[in-house]
Amino acid sequence: MSKSWEQRAQEKREAILAAIPQEWRIENPPLVEEQVDVTGKFVQQFLSEREVEITETTADEIVKRTVSGRWSAEEVTRAFCHRAAIAHQLLNCLHEIFFDAAIASAQALDAYYAAHKKPIGPLHGLPVSLKDQFHVKDAETTMGYVGWIGTFEGKTGTGKEKSFESEMVRELRASGAVLYCKTSVPHTLMSGETVNNIIGYTLNPKNRRLAAGGSSGGEGALIGIRGSPLGFGTDIGGSIRIPAAFNGLYGIRPSTGRMPYEGMANSMDGQNSILSVVGPLATSVPSLRLVIKALLAQKPWLHDPLVHELPWRFDKEREILELLGASGDASKAGKLSFGILRTDGIVNPLPPIRRAMDIVVQALEGLGHEVIDWKPPSHKTLLDEAFKTWVFDAGTDVKSAFSLSGEPMSDQISFYASLAKEYSASEVAATNVRLRQLKKEYMEYWNSTEQVTSTGRPVDAVICPLAPFPAARPKMYTYYGYSTFVNALDYTSVVVPVTNVEKAVDRVDEGYRPIDGLDKGVYESYDPEIYDGAHVSLQLVGRRLQEEKMLAIAEYVGKAIGK
Amino acid sequence: MSKSWEQRAQEKREAILAAIPQEWRIENPPLVEEQVDVTGKFVQQFLSEREVEITETTADEIVKRTVSGRWSAEEVTRAFCHRAAIAHQLLNCLHEIFFDAAIASAQALDAYYAAHKKPIGPLHGLPVSLKDQFHVKDAETTMGYVGWIGTFEGKTGTGKEKSFESEMVRELRASGAVLYCKTSVPHTLMSGETVNNIIGYTLNPKNRRLAAGGSSGGEGALIGIRGSPLGFGTDIGGSIRIPAAFNGLYGIRPSTGRMPYEGMANSMDGQNSILSVVGPLATSVPSLRLVIKALLAQKPWLHDPLVHELPWRFDKEREILELLGASGDASKAGKLSFGILRTDGIVNPLPPIRRAMDIVVQALEGLGHEVIDWKPPSHKTLLDEAFKTWVFDAGTDVKSAFSLSGEPMSDQISFYASLAKEYSASEVAATNVRLRQLKKEYMEYWNSTEQVTSTGRPVDAVICPLAPFPAARPKMYTYYGYSTFVNALDYTSVVVPVTNVEKAVDRVDEGYRPIDGLDKGVYESYDPEIYDGAHVSLQLVGRRLQEEKMLAIAEYVGKAIGK
Repeated sequence: MSKSWEQRAQEKREAILAAIPQEWRIENPPLVEEQVDVTGKFVQQFLSEREVEITETTADEIVKRTVSGRWSAEEVTRAFCHRAAIAHQLLNCLHEIFFDAAIASAQALDAYYAAHKKPIGPLHGLPVSLKDQFHVKDAETTMGYVGWIGTFEGKTGTGKEKSFESEMVRELRASGAVLYCKTSVPHTLMSGETVNNIIGYTLNPKNRRLAAGGSSGGEGALIGIRGSPLGFGTDIGGSIRIPAAFNGLYGIRPSTGRMPYEGMANSMDGQNSILSVVGPLATSVPSLRLVIKALLAQKPWLHDPLVHELPWRFDKEREILELLGASGDASKAGKLSFGILRTDGIVNPLPPIRRAMDIVVQALEGLGHEVIDWKPPSHKTLLDEAFKTWVFDAGTDVKSAFSLSGEPMSDQISFYASLAKEYSASEVAATNVRLRQLKKEYMEYWNSTEQVTSTGRPVDAVICPLAPFPAARPKMYTYYGYSTFVNALDYTSVVVPVTNVEKAVDRVDEGYRPIDGLDKGVYESYDPEIYDGAHVSLQLVGRRLQEEKMLAIAEYVGKAIGK
Repeated sequence: MSKSWEQRAQEKREAILAAIPQEWRIENPPLVEEQVDVTGKFVQQFLSEREVEITETTADEIVKRTVSGRWSAEEVTRAFCHRAAIAHQLLNCLHEIFFDAAIASAQALDAYYAAHKKPIGPLHGLPVSLKDQFHVKDAETTMGYVGWIGTFEGKTGTGKEKSFESEMVRELRASGAVLYCKTSVPHTLMSGETVNNIIGYTLNPKNRRLAAGGSSGGEGALIGIRGSPLGFGTDIGGSIRIPAAFNGLYGIRPSTGRMPYEGMANSMDGQNSILSVVGPLATSVPSLRLVIKALLAQKPWLHDPLVHELPWRFDKEREILELLGASGDASKAGKLSFGILRTDGIVNPLPPIRRAMDIVVQALEGLGHEVIDWKPPSHKTLLDEAFKTWVFDAGTDVKSAFSLSGEPMSDQISFYASLAKEYSASEVAATNVRLRQLKKEYMEYWNSTEQVTSTGRPVDAVICPLAPFPAARPKMYTYYGYSTFVNALDYTSVVVPVTNVEKAVDRVDEGYRPIDGLDKGVYESYDPEIYDGAHVSLQLVGRRLQEEKMLAIAEYVGKAIGK
């Protein structure tokens, strides 16, 4: 008799735990209500002072030390392995643990350094966590599906099981990164919460009453608690930016064709109307820039047919730095012009998000920049088309993954169960045409802002909520419009952490009159007592393929608000 | 009673003719057998010496004269209008004629020049012909459909009829180009021959027993007879390159995302597995480069959501020029490495194509370059997937266009009539996945040639047939594999004219044993008597988004073989 899905899930869950060395186990981890916030002092109690120092250093600063030989790759790797082990026991954020392999590769890097007196690449000795869509040798990829345990993407006998590696994995290794774990995702990947039948629910480290976000939720939780300095997620409707925002991190959704997705597992692979993209989350903008530059230096366009030949464009970055006077040439200093989208008119942001917008606007205006109201073409119209792409196949792909084991769908994605009729090729094509038309309208609106700015340029970036709430409460993630409109337009977007919920300040709107039931649901989900302390973030949205520019602006905005 | 499709087609056909001034009409144009080749001396008899001089000048040379005020835009425009008028009467190559509007815009350009002592843009005064997918103010777009006459893409009351202009039209006008006619296409666009119920069959000017090619067949015929110095076609399976090759022209299929398709009519719009691309055909490589650079200078990525921000990359061009020693720095001169695909193993090229390959290989080897056998992954496997994309919608789109008027399908595209079942979203997605996997395989093969070249680089370009025959005989275009594999891979390809059929040299292969029925059909279609004099061309295939590099190589190869 084959095992039940429950047994298989339990064995996998236990195997993950078993990969944590005994000395790193926590006896009786606290219940959520006993310890809501497990960041900072709480998690530090399990670590040595040196481990705290290492793990609370940003990726770019770590690399400055490892490429110069000041810190050994092994010491850095061991520290992050330890903190990640603690993280998983508090948050359920890991799917795969391969600390031994990580330490071995760190040792090899140190040996290389000792022999050659130079680093192997720009990420020498940097631990990097990966969402459980990346294939890594000697590790599984379950993507949260019980039916994928022991298989290659649900198939057996492919010869790829535990041996195939995704293109970006190769490039990260070639750059000197150390891979040590893969992080949790919601099964199907189509949720802003991370839950599956293997690891359960991934909690938000800053406030364990809240979701870590999704679908790169394990990344968000792990980096949020500093169990990783930097990791990679993917984003088809917000899945990099949601966990970044919910965990007070920087995260970038690059436009399609910039970063290599080649050889990764995915849901509904081949749906190419709105493509999922891969990108990093980290605790600083220079960290994001570091890995993007490192990967582009590997010329991914020679190994991923969907990546454009766009090396890192220093000139795009320089244009912004010169406008900001950071070039040291004051005569060239100018100002930036921002749009602000205070609401998309579909769901109004909750009080903490509104306060975050005020903070950013005031900081930027105080520095002499311009912020104008963003009045784009209807997001409703755009989103109506965009959401169709998630159900083109009526759930055929994800249903087949569930049927492998007979496991049930989580509530968060159970809408797939009710879908029956696939879109026809004509219907897919009609959606593509409509999306293209709406992109064209939006781009011409963006062009038209040249007439209302004082810079002579269209708006440089749009300040905008990433979600209507600071972080979703479990099973209350009902609206994806703020993140997904960016995917529909294929724009570049960087999440910037702004502040934290203060229950005394971010009070419930008295007498609020909801737009409709959807808006009412979000309004009613807000409870200052529950949200107190949660991270509050926004996104800075730029045009397509503006990664260099948007990172420069995000770094500047982060500094402007003291982050 | 509404008119019959025959009446409507006849009226449109007569209206096209009626747009030709009386003094440019040809009394009793010769029958095909009376005058097979209507280029050169034959067409020149209808023109003044000055008109011949102007119209036999390449686009880049014309522009040198118009931007410096040596030639007036009006004189140049009138000369091409005249020659285009003659062309249409001999070849059936025009759908729309707007000579009066062209002359008026030429006069406006001359007035601008007189007032400002400078050209309005880099294409100042250059007549440019457009395939009948471009929307131009005051002209119709029928795309060969009787049912589209008097409509906007088959619809009435859109407010766009005869007023809307495609994005590239705006950019061409802004660059100083003069638009004067739109050229014929096969209805549906899905044929390498150009035939529809309005203008009939577009003939090859060099050999009117043969097809002008398609689907940009009107462009091929018109530029082939020098009724246009340069025009734009589109290419989803070869439709720029086929007419370029059949008419002894240079033509480039850029990769997707390089040139703006925004606002053009199309067939099966929204099928985005293999996208149609737009690109120029002309009589010289510098002409192609001129217009591509002019369009990129207009920043089309700000107005077309599918165009990547890739300005003209001089460095990519320079790399090739330096390898060829054209920089004047002999110390840097090196060599190029070419692959040669003598057959794809599905259909063998006919004798004139094989001779053309020998000519190119000998010329390049004689100049010290390297030519290695190209042994790529199976083209059959790749094409099997690629051709699916043409029938995803089971002809739903094109059938609806035919049903508007009740007109019949031409034999060339009548396969659409037999299709019944659309692909589902899952089936479309599966094709997308497979195409991506095959692109990956092909790109890794290309990378691997680094091991067999002597340059230390992978092959720079692949020399390859564009079709198994020099030009198709009517109703004998049975195989598109040589052109379509390039679309499947989204590679950059430039057609280079090589030679002409010589019946005494290019004899039928005695004792040839065909691969199968398909190959046999192509073999049997070859008749040296019929083909004598026809243009013979090849394509040079480069990797994705290598337009600068491939134009530089194509220009060099053209010179090497004396073209």
